[in-house]
Amino acid sequence: MAKAPKTAISPTRADDYPEWYQQVIKAADLAENSPVRGCMVIKPWGYQLWENMQRALDDMFKATGHQNAYFPLFIPMSFLEKEAEHVEGFAKECAVVTHHRLEPDPEGGLRPAGQLEEPLIVRPTSETIIGATYAKWVQSYRDLPILINQWANVVRWEMRTRMFLRTAEFLWQEGHTVHATDTEAIEETERMINVYADFARNWMAMPVTIGAKTAGERFPGAVETLSIEAMMQDRKALQAGTSHFLGQNFSKAQEIVFQSESGSREYAWTTSWGVSTRLVGALIMTHSDDDGFVLPPKLAPIHVVILPIYKDDSRSAVMEYIHALRDALRAQSYDGVPVRVEIDDRDMRGGEKKWHHVKRGVPIRLEVGPKDMEKNSVFMGRRDQPKSVGMDRNELVATIGTLLGEIQQSLYDRADQLRIENTVTITNEADFRDFFTPKNAGNPEIHGGFAMCHFADEASIDALLKELKVTIRCVPSENNDTPGTCFATGKPAEKQAIFAKAY
Amino acid sequence: MAKAPKTAISPTRADDYPEWYQQVIKAADLAENSPVRGCMVIKPWGYQLWENMQRALDDMFKATGHQNAYFPLFIPMSFLEKEAEHVEGFAKECAVVTHHRLEPDPEGGLRPAGQLEEPLIVRPTSETIIGATYAKWVQSYRDLPILINQWANVVRWEMRTRMFLRTAEFLWQEGHTVHATDTEAIEETERMINVYADFARNWMAMPVTIGAKTAGERFPGAVETLSIEAMMQDRKALQAGTSHFLGQNFSKAQEIVFQSESGSREYAWTTSWGVSTRLVGALIMTHSDDDGFVLPPKLAPIHVVILPIYKDDSRSAVMEYIHALRDALRAQSYDGVPVRVEIDDRDMRGGEKKWHHVKRGVPIRLEVGPKDMEKNSVFMGRRDQPKSVGMDRNELVATIGTLLGEIQQSLYDRADQLRIENTVTITNEADFRDFFTPKNAGNPEIHGGFAMCHFADEASIDALLKELKVTIRCVPSENNDTPGTCFATGKPAEKQAIFAKAY
Repeated sequence: MAKAPKTAISPTRADDYPEWYQQVIKAADLAENSPVRGCMVIKPWGYQLWENMQRALDDMFKATGHQNAYFPLFIPMSFLEKEAEHVEGFAKECAVVTHHRLEPDPEGGLRPAGQLEEPLIVRPTSETIIGATYAKWVQSYRDLPILINQWANVVRWEMRTRMFLRTAEFLWQEGHTVHATDTEAIEETERMINVYADFARNWMAMPVTIGAKTAGERFPGAVETLSIEAMMQDRKALQAGTSHFLGQNFSKAQEIVFQSESGSREYAWTTSWGVSTRLVGALIMTHSDDDGFVLPPKLAPIHVVILPIYKDDSRSAVMEYIHALRDALRAQSYDGVPVRVEIDDRDMRGGEKKWHHVKRGVPIRLEVGPKDMEKNSVFMGRRDQPKSVGMDRNELVATIGTLLGEIQQSLYDRADQLRIENTVTITNEADFRDFFTPKNAGNPEIHGGFAMCHFADEASIDALLKELKVTIRCVPSENNDTPGTCFATGKPAEKQAIFAKAY
Repeated sequence: MAKAPKTAISPTRADDYPEWYQQVIKAADLAENSPVRGCMVIKPWGYQLWENMQRALDDMFKATGHQNAYFPLFIPMSFLEKEAEHVEGFAKECAVVTHHRLEPDPEGGLRPAGQLEEPLIVRPTSETIIGATYAKWVQSYRDLPILINQWANVVRWEMRTRMFLRTAEFLWQEGHTVHATDTEAIEETERMINVYADFARNWMAMPVTIGAKTAGERFPGAVETLSIEAMMQDRKALQAGTSHFLGQNFSKAQEIVFQSESGSREYAWTTSWGVSTRLVGALIMTHSDDDGFVLPPKLAPIHVVILPIYKDDSRSAVMEYIHALRDALRAQSYDGVPVRVEIDDRDMRGGEKKWHHVKRGVPIRLEVGPKDMEKNSVFMGRRDQPKSVGMDRNELVATIGTLLGEIQQSLYDRADQLRIENTVTITNEADFRDFFTPKNAGNPEIHGGFAMCHFADEASIDALLKELKVTIRCVPSENNDTPGTCFATGKPAEKQAIFAKAY
């Protein structure tokens, strides 16, 4: 085997994808495990990215008529019990508060004291506590719709955690809406999954498929769950956002009742929808490479970093040139905002400094020394391309917005190509088995990708899916009207679904 | 007694200040109590205000070199034990997580299961968990300073709660910084209390005094606590923000150690500083009146609301006029941002609609009907003044920024006048007792206000303060260099302090 070129991240993706993922997070300084089991510390570079995601999503929520509010962290245990499927879904992994103070332990140290009459659950999701509040707010059809979103932390006591993808505590937003009719609630459910798809595609440069979850994969208590599914570089699927039509299940459990225009008393129709810090994990596994993180420009905290190169006698001239360049770039705009430019003038070896920014995924690096100054040029590295190139300084300033747009598009295109190349229509069980059997001896985790298959019913293929560790990701909403026969049972089938191994 | 004019809020401030406070929150739709003991629901209007506060503060933190990050919600019990004063301060009121799942209870319902090896505390503040993380990050003086802020929820199991002022869960920000020298850490502590004072004065239009807490009032574990103290309309003090110089107390408890430039191993110097949703309570009690909430324009989610008045035949002409007015106003700016203007065209009686916005504190209301149109005028109500006035439409558009600035200033001036009028220098115990004895038979809670007194030491006046339910708010940092004698003991005293009843 030929020796692989040296990379900033070790192991490479081909060698060990899960470990590569951890190493990218470390090299890009995005987050780290905390001393608290399953909880992570989101470091400033990772948190800035999350803030940019929040800002973009929040604007989209407000543009679709939603307002933010804030509901309690704690949910009384009895609230969770009211919706049977819901409690089944969350009871096995929740943090339970049972005491409200600490007292000295006679054997040393402290011990819990002041037992609560009713245990409180740290919210794993807020349908129950928000629904109880809405029940008070809703009296008449005039009070509807209620269109509210909350940015919050939630806790699910996951046994196997992985930073951003699955952590005991995570940050997210959860929209909770109430409507007078099922039609309106279904429209809302669809509107919000489309907002998520728009965000994934146009901000994260991440192709996604919109579809409906099958019964076995639905949110506990939902009538219908819509999701966006993305393909990661290892061809596994990642569910990046969900929007739930809850029907009248929660309004019946919580008595969200309104008087209709005709005077009748009716249960309301509710929805909920959410995305989380998991999106940071999705971003890493969509774009990053063996040199580290790759940021789509629209979400990058910094678009351009300028790295001065000088000796003592050239310092002041170079810095003057660079400050003028920074100001000229900042006066340009990309996608409606001023270009975000920083100078890194830390006292550090040039190579080390360059790699610092490569690993953190900054879209454009500009190295500028006395020779570049003389030629009125810069040495430009695009994070999505391997080689740096010399470029006229004025041309760079004039085209910086276009350049960032090109990078954003190139990231999307590359990810979309991977998705297309590894999405295969499969019509029989033998091919299906083969597709999900790892082929690559060097990396036992690499398998086929997304299998598009007609299927008749979930129960009859359950054993096969369990055996292969494959799940039904979703039944795509578009281009999915041609009937066929189930790949496994041969029964007539209305729709295709995406089958994949998943995060 | 003459009959009081009818007010939108009942009771009035003079009748029952605490109950008036609750009723303003209800009338302005800011928040409500939740089904979870001591936790509130922050409703959209209240949350928008908090978002505006967050945005302004966050910009100020970033302008002073800080970055945001996020640390775990949970703190292992053993972490809390490390700093003796700290655990003493927080152990009596904290939510303790002891289990990580629920299981069916043989007697019906659910019960906690899966006991944790070590209980987890829901963070009441994060010095311990953040410090443990910093201990890993800090190796050398080159790693310093660390300047990080976190926006988060925290929980303190308060027994007596009041919305915004004291709730079991609240939202806040907590800055946590690490420095190589005590000088730098003290500078940081002072810098951040000045940021808070700037925010209180210039955004909230709330006068505050900066000072140092006495030993008995310090943050548990701090060497020095600086605070900003404001006077509410009932002359009580409210601590609106604190900044703590923690010395080496927490770095010793958590081993935050660095190698200095000269090679020695040294404990770092740390600070922490925070403000919370309590500021919303402070805003209510600084500016609101017997008709409801009064918002300072710089923090108002809406600056101007336009209320159309029409009959069926005049509707389209009035709405056209109003849309043009809205657009013209939005094209103006106030304090660097476009004027925030909304039209309220809901089907509702005119008086009811007007009062809706009065109670919510919108700074400027414009009522516009066919007669106003004819005269090219508007009927303008300023929330800080009792009477609405007719005003030329073009003049309004041209001066809207100035007008909002005037309102912002008038609110500050009114609050400052109250503070000055009710701040009295007191030099002996008899006057002190008299000052804090309620005089107003109609409102037993009204007392003197802020007493400025020289005092020699805390212990010798402790009994007197407890008897009168008065606390030392702070030792003001400015204009406080003239020695005197203690008002109670006659001992020589270096400084004056503010003495007050407090929230």
